[in-house]
Amino acid sequence: MPPPPNTSELLRTERSNSNINISAITALLDHNLTLRRREIESRIESCPTFSNLPNANLSRLELHSRALAKHIKMMEIARQLRISLDDCTSPEFVMLVQAVADDLPTLLHWGMFVPNIKCLCDDEQTKKWLPLCSDCRVVGCYAQTEMGHGSNVRGLETTAVYDKATESFTISTPTLTSTKFWPGSLGKSANTAMVIAQLIDSTGANRGVHNFIVPIRDLNTHSPLPGVTVGDIGSKLGYNKMDNGYLKLDRVVIPRENMAMRFSQINANGIYEKINLDDSTAKISYITMMQVRAQIVAMASTALAQACTISIRYSAVRTQGFDATGKKERQILDYVQQQHRLFGYLASSYTFFFSGRRIMENLKSIERGVLEGTRSVSKYQIGDLHASLSTLKAFCSTVAAEGIENCRRACGGHGYLVASGFPELLTTYQQNPTVEGDNYMLPQQTGKVLLKLLGAIIDGDGVDTVEAEWAGCDAFYLIDGIRRLSENSAAEVIESPEAAIDVALLLKILKRRSSRILVEVGTSINEGLGEGAELSEVWNDSLVQIARVSNAHAGVLLMQSFDDFLKSEELTGKELDAMKQLACLFGLMLVEKDAGDFQDILDKAGVDHVRKAVLLVLKKIRPNAVGLVDAFDFSDFRLKSVLGRYDGEVYEHLMKSCEADMMNRQQVIQPVVSLGGSGLTSKL
Amino acid sequence: MPPPPNTSELLRTERSNSNINISAITALLDHNLTLRRREIESRIESCPTFSNLPNANLSRLELHSRALAKHIKMMEIARQLRISLDDCTSPEFVMLVQAVADDLPTLLHWGMFVPNIKCLCDDEQTKKWLPLCSDCRVVGCYAQTEMGHGSNVRGLETTAVYDKATESFTISTPTLTSTKFWPGSLGKSANTAMVIAQLIDSTGANRGVHNFIVPIRDLNTHSPLPGVTVGDIGSKLGYNKMDNGYLKLDRVVIPRENMAMRFSQINANGIYEKINLDDSTAKISYITMMQVRAQIVAMASTALAQACTISIRYSAVRTQGFDATGKKERQILDYVQQQHRLFGYLASSYTFFFSGRRIMENLKSIERGVLEGTRSVSKYQIGDLHASLSTLKAFCSTVAAEGIENCRRACGGHGYLVASGFPELLTTYQQNPTVEGDNYMLPQQTGKVLLKLLGAIIDGDGVDTVEAEWAGCDAFYLIDGIRRLSENSAAEVIESPEAAIDVALLLKILKRRSSRILVEVGTSINEGLGEGAELSEVWNDSLVQIARVSNAHAGVLLMQSFDDFLKSEELTGKELDAMKQLACLFGLMLVEKDAGDFQDILDKAGVDHVRKAVLLVLKKIRPNAVGLVDAFDFSDFRLKSVLGRYDGEVYEHLMKSCEADMMNRQQVIQPVVSLGGSGLTSKL
Repeated sequence: MPPPPNTSELLRTERSNSNINISAITALLDHNLTLRRREIESRIESCPTFSNLPNANLSRLELHSRALAKHIKMMEIARQLRISLDDCTSPEFVMLVQAVADDLPTLLHWGMFVPNIKCLCDDEQTKKWLPLCSDCRVVGCYAQTEMGHGSNVRGLETTAVYDKATESFTISTPTLTSTKFWPGSLGKSANTAMVIAQLIDSTGANRGVHNFIVPIRDLNTHSPLPGVTVGDIGSKLGYNKMDNGYLKLDRVVIPRENMAMRFSQINANGIYEKINLDDSTAKISYITMMQVRAQIVAMASTALAQACTISIRYSAVRTQGFDATGKKERQILDYVQQQHRLFGYLASSYTFFFSGRRIMENLKSIERGVLEGTRSVSKYQIGDLHASLSTLKAFCSTVAAEGIENCRRACGGHGYLVASGFPELLTTYQQNPTVEGDNYMLPQQTGKVLLKLLGAIIDGDGVDTVEAEWAGCDAFYLIDGIRRLSENSAAEVIESPEAAIDVALLLKILKRRSSRILVEVGTSINEGLGEGAELSEVWNDSLVQIARVSNAHAGVLLMQSFDDFLKSEELTGKELDAMKQLACLFGLMLVEKDAGDFQDILDKAGVDHVRKAVLLVLKKIRPNAVGLVDAFDFSDFRLKSVLGRYDGEVYEHLMKSCEADMMNRQQVIQPVVSLGGSGLTSKL
Repeated sequence: MPPPPNTSELLRTERSNSNINISAITALLDHNLTLRRREIESRIESCPTFSNLPNANLSRLELHSRALAKHIKMMEIARQLRISLDDCTSPEFVMLVQAVADDLPTLLHWGMFVPNIKCLCDDEQTKKWLPLCSDCRVVGCYAQTEMGHGSNVRGLETTAVYDKATESFTISTPTLTSTKFWPGSLGKSANTAMVIAQLIDSTGANRGVHNFIVPIRDLNTHSPLPGVTVGDIGSKLGYNKMDNGYLKLDRVVIPRENMAMRFSQINANGIYEKINLDDSTAKISYITMMQVRAQIVAMASTALAQACTISIRYSAVRTQGFDATGKKERQILDYVQQQHRLFGYLASSYTFFFSGRRIMENLKSIERGVLEGTRSVSKYQIGDLHASLSTLKAFCSTVAAEGIENCRRACGGHGYLVASGFPELLTTYQQNPTVEGDNYMLPQQTGKVLLKLLGAIIDGDGVDTVEAEWAGCDAFYLIDGIRRLSENSAAEVIESPEAAIDVALLLKILKRRSSRILVEVGTSINEGLGEGAELSEVWNDSLVQIARVSNAHAGVLLMQSFDDFLKSEELTGKELDAMKQLACLFGLMLVEKDAGDFQDILDKAGVDHVRKAVLLVLKKIRPNAVGLVDAFDFSDFRLKSVLGRYDGEVYEHLMKSCEADMMNRQQVIQPVVSLGGSGLTSKL
């Protein structure tokens, strides 16, 4: 038997074998705020309130209480470090929240309630509520989803009935299924809810869903107000320090001024009116939702980065299977299969970073422009953004959830331990595929927009018109792509594996796929309609293929953002080379995974070259793998993983974590019977 | 807003719309023991010891204690109902354990320790140990895996050094990495361990790994014996009532007779000798491992069945999105996309059942035959079995883990709640892809066997010889498949979507794929070797493609078992039709998912027909979907899911589960600081 490996030494060797300048990449990922981030992290990590010692044996109530204390302390530190909490998308806010490395029960206050006030309330309302929000006298939540109603907002049952005489709304959840259900921070933390309800005006007419600010708990005692029944919805797969809640409202009365009134209101005379309805301003009401989706893209990158850091470092210190000499076991990172399962996610993490950054910048610029009146946004641009965000949210969060789980499995049995860091990372992440637009619903949104574009091209407003309307849009490439499709149907020629390692070529292939599947689905829908079928039936029968359209579009957007970055000169030299390898790997693995989509775009030899090209790129990435995860610069405090430790002392700390476990405080555990049982105490 | 749906009524309608005889299918799945199963379940469910009320807020220690009580009570009920615990693969044992619907800390005693004694110990040893095991005076575990050593058994560091003078072994775990780590039941429950160690005989020669029975705790006090350090390895992603453990042995001495001696021993003279080494008998030593893998295939079917029951019933009562009239919301089960994501797993569950049953029967017959001396097993048959079980274990547990998670997501947000039943089902299941042969390692085992077969065909022992050697083997089809490959390279013609709905055709396509990928990989390995590369390097570079070989082989085996069943006349009429639809869906979705593998086997029109055929089959299955999950006959007690309740009263019970949650016992939760903090108590 060979001697056990010196795990720290193995990591040190990896680091000295890598030839890239890690800190240049870290600066890029940090938006050039690395020092500031480290300052924030060091403040958090040195404060005992933020202790993240293993706590899998504490009850939810205890965990929630501790998380509340973290919230209070975090606000204090934010003040001291002059970090504004007003904009939850600002890099410093994100850094602060990520530094805490724990669920904060009040996160939806900053993340949805405050942005909603800013976006949907008029100036007078904003002036009243924002200061109350700033010092957390008001802690808010966003109460849209009901027990029986999720994605179909039109189906919400909660009502807000206006009474002209008292100038007030009566808010009710009249049925069991209308119980507000799931809003984060609602269960125990919030004292105020932004409630989404059907507005019934004084004529009895239903004006559709609107937003209402509803006090639910006494600002002083925190007790529920009359007519309010509120509580936590119970334990979840993860994210258990957050108090997702339920809310029943039994004829709760709020003043007229508590309706969010920037875009519509009941005026003092009791008349419902829409206001500020010019095209571009009104669309900004979507921006909160869009921002949340953009954040999910960015978070997908971060979550994958964390999973890759743990699994790649561990794969460098874990040895298994003898080498050719039979005297030494091999690092499992040297197995091509291990590289294949891990480096694809590493590439995805970087890819998502560039897309997330680009789309958030785009959103911010639109928001600023519209608010300042310097920029107008066409319905094509809004539709395009909506299409991009819908497919990117779905694509990135699906890949990240799958990736975290695969990184966990790549650590073998040890990845199943809480001490590995994976269980918390994974189970908390797993909410992302279903929140903020279910990943199976969202592709329809993308499909609708792209099929409309296809319709415009085919039915011919004239290509020039379409090109003008969609100028600058993400989906613009489809106009040319669809045209070329009919002109040129020969397979793309890839001469060798080496020739496939080419971002421009990969982008071209991905665009061809996207254009072709879109046209196929459009044709098939038209055929169905031509045969006299109902649109809703044809649409239903097309859902599976529409998901392919969305998926293919996401591939192009992601590859395009990465390509734009590569051309930006933000990095140079060996660091740029490393990024190019990751971009190629991402594109190559998309083709490899969905090879069936490329039939006739690539011939069999082409696909085989792609498969071999993947292996060539893995070999290139291998020496820098540890460096490329080190560049994410996660502290051990944030990773919470004995397997992913920076120093590689995996086994020593694995042992320590076992020895400290509460199961080992007593040698003999007696069997006990639960509720009302007979109290067996016989030993085994 | 339309009125909320009557969920119970929706399920009743589904049941009256289905035209299949559910109980015939249930009987099949129960091996015709449905009444017995229900008797067992009713005994368990009526006993308060087995209460499975939500317990996500209890500590692991409490959960483990309760599970111990369940173990004791279960043994009592087994005695009363005359269920033998001696054979963990018997249908009655499986039914009993499944009826408990909870992790039993002692499961590895029955599942691995006892079978190991039976299989590896000689008659005298068996006579001594089995009675002690039967009444749980000895509670055993199987201690193979070490902290630093998993799949590579040759790399284990634990030693058993024989001393001729005292006729004893000294067992040691000399390093940190040799600490036994992960064995189930080891941490707290077991008093005896089957320890796998390198045997060093009295000449100092290493005789390789062998099994040793090592007492680790006092049979009366349950305290660890001298030289033994033992404990629990800490909280895991799931399966937390099981006490996976660690074990350090500091020169623990055991008598010579505690080595498992059926196949090798140190005799009284201190000489190491192998015994009973005729080909077929010795191979039986693999049977325990093979049985565990076969059980994993069967369990993959059960776990998927459970996930499908919850998600398909819930999809029948959940409504969302208006129908064409705009007055009623649609059942989400009517969305083709929902069918596409769920029915494939339903089909997989049935498919895995038939494969699991077949391979377990095969194993049992071999075991019986060999033990009774009436059957001999050739090395080809053993290799073939090993190849089949390796790929099936990996394939089925990968699909099941993915399927449970996708069924969870198909329930939207509510699937994230513990009350949905998914978190426990999922997190407990997620150990399966890494235990008992990691799913990324196992395909190599399959690849090795199939490549050997390929070599024999090509290098030509003569086809007749090869056919004789592999007669009756699962991989036999490859002989003909490889021959046809060179004879016939035209694409398979599929004229229409309807024509693709054909089990025989699908089986043919799957066999072509499997044969072709095998030949491609074999050729590529030979080319690599021809260019002078090291075998280990060529093998490493081929791992990704070898996984495709294994995956393709699994597809054939699964489809073949299903086809054999369809021809068996165990079911007839509408029930047989329903099974045929599931078989077709399984095959079609394999082709749809891996379409890139079929390039040149199917042309683009063929693949498009397959995609459309999937939709046609989904439509056929739709009316029977609830019936086909009802047929699994899970009690609400076993499902533990408010979403999957038989009566459909989803929302009422969702609300009840929230109201009972411990988070709602107090209105105001105070923030508290964890370890050594300053004790902030300010309210929000």
